[in-house]
Amino acid sequence: MYEGIVQDLIDELGRLPGVGPKSAQRIAFHLLAAEPVDVRRLAEVLLEVKAKVRFCSICGNVAESEECRICQDTRRDLTVICVVEEPKDVVAVERTREFRGRYHVLGGAISPIEGIGPDDLRVKELMTRLADGTVIELILATDPNIEGEATATYLARLVKPMKLTVSRLASGLPVGGDLEYADEVTLGRAFEGRRRLEV
Amino acid sequence: MYEGIVQDLIDELGRLPGVGPKSAQRIAFHLLAAEPVDVRRLAEVLLEVKAKVRFCSICGNVAESEECRICQDTRRDLTVICVVEEPKDVVAVERTREFRGRYHVLGGAISPIEGIGPDDLRVKELMTRLADGTVIELILATDPNIEGEATATYLARLVKPMKLTVSRLASGLPVGGDLEYADEVTLGRAFEGRRRLEV
Repeated sequence: MYEGIVQDLIDELGRLPGVGPKSAQRIAFHLLAAEPVDVRRLAEVLLEVKAKVRFCSICGNVAESEECRICQDTRRDLTVICVVEEPKDVVAVERTREFRGRYHVLGGAISPIEGIGPDDLRVKELMTRLADGTVIELILATDPNIEGEATATYLARLVKPMKLTVSRLASGLPVGGDLEYADEVTLGRAFEGRRRLEV
Repeated sequence: MYEGIVQDLIDELGRLPGVGPKSAQRIAFHLLAAEPVDVRRLAEVLLEVKAKVRFCSICGNVAESEECRICQDTRRDLTVICVVEEPKDVVAVERTREFRGRYHVLGGAISPIEGIGPDDLRVKELMTRLADGTVIELILATDPNIEGEATATYLARLVKPMKLTVSRLASGLPVGGDLEYADEVTLGRAFEGRRRLEV
């Protein structure tokens, strides 16, 4: 319905998660009316983020250099690793201030329906990190839904021969939900009450 | 909570209308995981849209050249002007296929609360278009809310000496709503049943 480039913009915005056609149109007209310098800044951040952001060579979290800020931080406890699905889950756990170890970002969860198996996740990288015996505790903080539970169970079985302390975040998190939406207190409680996984 | 540029992206996205902090984060991580070429395309469309899109010198609608497609279309009826608030309202009316005249986009509505008066809208440009006597009918299709009604009444009084046929879209549109959200049938009916404005 719109002329060339305006429709292109609406189409591109409509591809973003959670942005429907009406929202895309609303955002597009907001941008048309906005100061050129503001729109330019958004465009530049988009280009810059893809150029600059990479993934930490140790934990897989987003980083602006070879290693992320957390892996570079020498005050963090090297004997504990908290395994999460996505970089945004690292932020959620950090907000609780309950955890002083390091992370391992899997890049998703095991999901047979979506065809995602252990080989599609950063499982091999986790095993490499565990090989030298520095890590003695593993906290499996994957999402409290079917895929997250399956991933936690898979990992617990995989590391069983290593005699690590393996735990799963305590219930208290709403089941079927997304880890990133938990409030700080609930997530903090879940950290305190984490239970040993017996497989 | 995030490292430099990732937080910048979340902040920029959070400034868009209808995008809260959680949505901004979700979109940001979607973009981080997306193909660089897709993100580049979005960034380029953003830059291009601000460089290319201007406003039609006749009606004020968005256009990629001096005049918009509708004003360039010689098959449109030059004797009728439909006055709307925003370019998106032009699209809403066009979808009804009930109207074959031309448009005049005001760029908003009179709103004393927001400090928007007639001088902030394209009212002077409308009066210039009406001056040569070609236009004999004016359809006031501003939004059916307080600001839109006030704007319609103001315009009707302003053009009264010109002896034009002045009408307002028929009721049928939900009052207090936004013109752009009306479905085609409702908006089409409202066009058919437009009533003469007596002031």
